[in-house]
Amino acid sequence: MLPKDFLVGGIHCGIAKKKDKKDLALFYSKRPAVASAMFTANLVKAAPILVSAEHLEASGCMRAIIANSGCANACTGFPGKRDAEEMCRMVAEQAGIRPAEVLVASTGVIGRSLPMACLPKGIRALWKAVANGKNDAAAAAEAILTTDTVTKTAARRISAGGSEINIWGCVKGAGMVHPDLKPHATMLGFILTDAAIERKDMDTAFRSAVEDSFNCVTVDGDTSTNDTVFLLANGAAENAKLKKGTAAYAEFARALAAVCLDLARMIAADGEGATHFVEIEVRGAADGHAAKKIASAIATSPLVKTAIFGEDANWGRIIAVAGRAGVPIDPAAVDIYIGNILVARHGMATDFSEAKARKVLGQKDIKVVLDLNMGNGRATYYTCDFSIDYVKINANYRT
Amino acid sequence: MLPKDFLVGGIHCGIAKKKDKKDLALFYSKRPAVASAMFTANLVKAAPILVSAEHLEASGCMRAIIANSGCANACTGFPGKRDAEEMCRMVAEQAGIRPAEVLVASTGVIGRSLPMACLPKGIRALWKAVANGKNDAAAAAEAILTTDTVTKTAARRISAGGSEINIWGCVKGAGMVHPDLKPHATMLGFILTDAAIERKDMDTAFRSAVEDSFNCVTVDGDTSTNDTVFLLANGAAENAKLKKGTAAYAEFARALAAVCLDLARMIAADGEGATHFVEIEVRGAADGHAAKKIASAIATSPLVKTAIFGEDANWGRIIAVAGRAGVPIDPAAVDIYIGNILVARHGMATDFSEAKARKVLGQKDIKVVLDLNMGNGRATYYTCDFSIDYVKINANYRT
Repeated sequence: MLPKDFLVGGIHCGIAKKKDKKDLALFYSKRPAVASAMFTANLVKAAPILVSAEHLEASGCMRAIIANSGCANACTGFPGKRDAEEMCRMVAEQAGIRPAEVLVASTGVIGRSLPMACLPKGIRALWKAVANGKNDAAAAAEAILTTDTVTKTAARRISAGGSEINIWGCVKGAGMVHPDLKPHATMLGFILTDAAIERKDMDTAFRSAVEDSFNCVTVDGDTSTNDTVFLLANGAAENAKLKKGTAAYAEFARALAAVCLDLARMIAADGEGATHFVEIEVRGAADGHAAKKIASAIATSPLVKTAIFGEDANWGRIIAVAGRAGVPIDPAAVDIYIGNILVARHGMATDFSEAKARKVLGQKDIKVVLDLNMGNGRATYYTCDFSIDYVKINANYRT
Repeated sequence: MLPKDFLVGGIHCGIAKKKDKKDLALFYSKRPAVASAMFTANLVKAAPILVSAEHLEASGCMRAIIANSGCANACTGFPGKRDAEEMCRMVAEQAGIRPAEVLVASTGVIGRSLPMACLPKGIRALWKAVANGKNDAAAAAEAILTTDTVTKTAARRISAGGSEINIWGCVKGAGMVHPDLKPHATMLGFILTDAAIERKDMDTAFRSAVEDSFNCVTVDGDTSTNDTVFLLANGAAENAKLKKGTAAYAEFARALAAVCLDLARMIAADGEGATHFVEIEVRGAADGHAAKKIASAIATSPLVKTAIFGEDANWGRIIAVAGRAGVPIDPAAVDIYIGNILVARHGMATDFSEAKARKVLGQKDIKVVLDLNMGNGRATYYTCDFSIDYVKINANYRT
C-alpha cells in the first residue's frame, strides 16, 4: 500500500535494449517531502549521485525522484552530469516544480552515456501516466530492475502520533551488490512514507536502518558506483510530528528498519544466478564491528559460496575465512552451525550426519552461524550462493 | 636441474582418494641446510605449520621436508599436531636424522584427520625410492598437487661466489589461493638451492622475493590455513658464502626472485577453472602500498574475473573496483589499458574498437594496466579468470 499523496509509475522509454523492459520510474509527492539519502562510498561516483547530493545539500525538501535502468551514467564526466541535471529539469517542467526539488538515480552499464534523445518523450509519457492519479507501484518497481528476476517491494503500516502511517519501499540489485552506503550504494532503493517528521530525526532512524540492512547485503563483494537509497516523508498522514525519544518515533524507526531489512533480504535472495538465500550470523565476537567484518568476509568468499551452491557442508572453508578476516579470533573456540546442525565444535569437526547436512543445504534458505565464544558482538550478513548461472550472467552482461 | 646433494621424490601412499594420484613428497638434503620459511597469516593455522614453526625456532638447520596432499590436517586440534609430529619422526627414523630437523606441510580438505595408518609404509617406500640416489623431481612436484592440472617447477643457474649455484623450486596451488605469507600461506612451495649462505642473509632475499611473487598471486581471494613456502640452502655448491651487499648476493637474490615469480605466475595460470592468465598492473599510484591494494582488489573481483572469462572489455567494472579499494584515487585521472588498447582515458570511455578488444581478450594471457596518474607507486598482481568450471570444481570438491 503506497503512503498517502505519492504518485508513482514506470514505463519503457528506450534506455533499456529490450523493447518491453520498463526503464524509467517516477516517484512524486503531491506535497513537499522531507528527504534523506545514503550514497555509495565508492570514490567513483556516478553523475546522478553528484547531482542528487547537490540538490539535497541545497534543500532537505524534495518533490520527486526520477530513476532509470539500462545505463548507470557513471564515468561519463561533465556531459554525464549535465544529462542527470537535464533529467531533473524535464521532470520539474512537467510537474511544475523546481529542478532542485528532483532527485535522480541510474543503474546499468558503466561508462556509457544516457541516450538522451528518448527522455523528453519518455518523461512526458511517465508524468501523464501518474498525473491522473493512476498509481502503478508495480511498474515503478519493475522499471528500476536490471539483472533482477523479480520486483522487490516491502511495506509497513503503523499507528503513531495519532495517525495511521504508511511506509513503502522498492529496491533493485542483483549484481555489483555490496553496498557501503554513507550518509550524504548498484542497488537503488526508494522508500516513501506519509509520516510527518523532522529531517534530522528521520536521518537518525534511516542511517541506523540502512546500516543493519542494505549495508549487510552482498552478492559479489563489488561496491557499486551508483548505490543510492532515498527516503521521502511527505507528512500526508498528518500525525503529530514524530520526535526522537518518544514511543511513536521508536515505532516508526522499527517499521522503517523492518521495511529496509525486508528489501535487503530480497536483494540477496535475487542475487545474480542465486539458487540459495544465505544468512551468515556471527555471534560471540569481541564486538559488533569484528562480527560484521567476519560475516562480510564469509558472505563474499567464492569458496564458501560455491560450496553452498554444491550443497556441501564444507565448514573448513568457513572457518578459514574467519581466520583471514583481519580481526582476532581463537580458532579453537569456534563453533559452526549449518541450519540447526553443529558441524564444528571448538574448531574441529563434529560427528555430524552428512545426510542431514545435505537435507538442510537442499533447502532454499540457509542459515550459517559462527559462534566465536569470545564476547557479545553479533552481526548478520545476507547473501546468496555462487552458481554456474552467476558466471554465465556476468560473462555476457555488457555485450 | 636439482641443486647438488638434494634427494627428492614422490609416491602414492593412500591419503588421496584416487589410487594413482601421488600424495606424499620428500625433499631431503644430504647435508644440513640453512632453512627459511614463510607461513600463512591466517589465524586458523594448520597443524603442520605449527610443527614446522616450532622446529625452525629451535634450529635454522634442516635436513628434510615431508609434504602430503589430500588432507590439510587443519582444524584437527591436538591430535592433528601429534600426527604432523609423527610424520617428522617417521622421516627422521628412516633418514637417521633428528625429528626436529624435518619440516612438514599438508594440503587438501580442512577439518579431516590424516589417515595415519598408511604413513609408516608410505614413508618407508618413499625413503627407499630416494635413498638410492634416484631423484624424481617430477614425482615430488606431482605429489603436492590437489586441483592443480599441471606440475609447477622453475629453476635458475647462476655463477656466483666462485661456483655454479642452482636454485630449483616446485609449488602447488589452484584454489584457496591468496597467499598472505609472513616470515616465521593453500599454496605450498619448496625451493632448494645448493648455495652457501647465512640464514639471516637468505631470509632477507627470501622475504623480498616472496613479497613480490607469492604474495601477489590470487585465484579466489581466500587466504588458506596451510600456505607455506620453504627454502633450503645446503651449501653443496661450495661457493664463497653469499654476503649481503655483494654483487654475488645480488645475483643470487635476483635468481631467487625469478624462480619465485615463475612459480607464482604458474599458480595463477593454473588457477581452478582458469581459461586466462591475467596480469593486473597498477601504476601512477600514490605509493606501492596503494598500488598493491588496488591491484589485489581488481584481481579478486568476481565481476572483473567473469567479464574476462566472457572476453568482454568491461572496463567500468575495473574502475569501479579501484574506487572501492580503500585508497584515495582521482577517478577523473584514471587511464585503463586492456593489452595495448586504451579503453578508458581520464575515467571515461575512449572510442576503442570492440573488435580489437575482443581479439586481445581472446588470447590466453591478458594484461590490464591502470594508470592512476597520481604518483610513482606501482604493483602487479597475478590471477586468472572466473569460469563456469571454477564453480563446478568448487561445488563438488569435498564430497
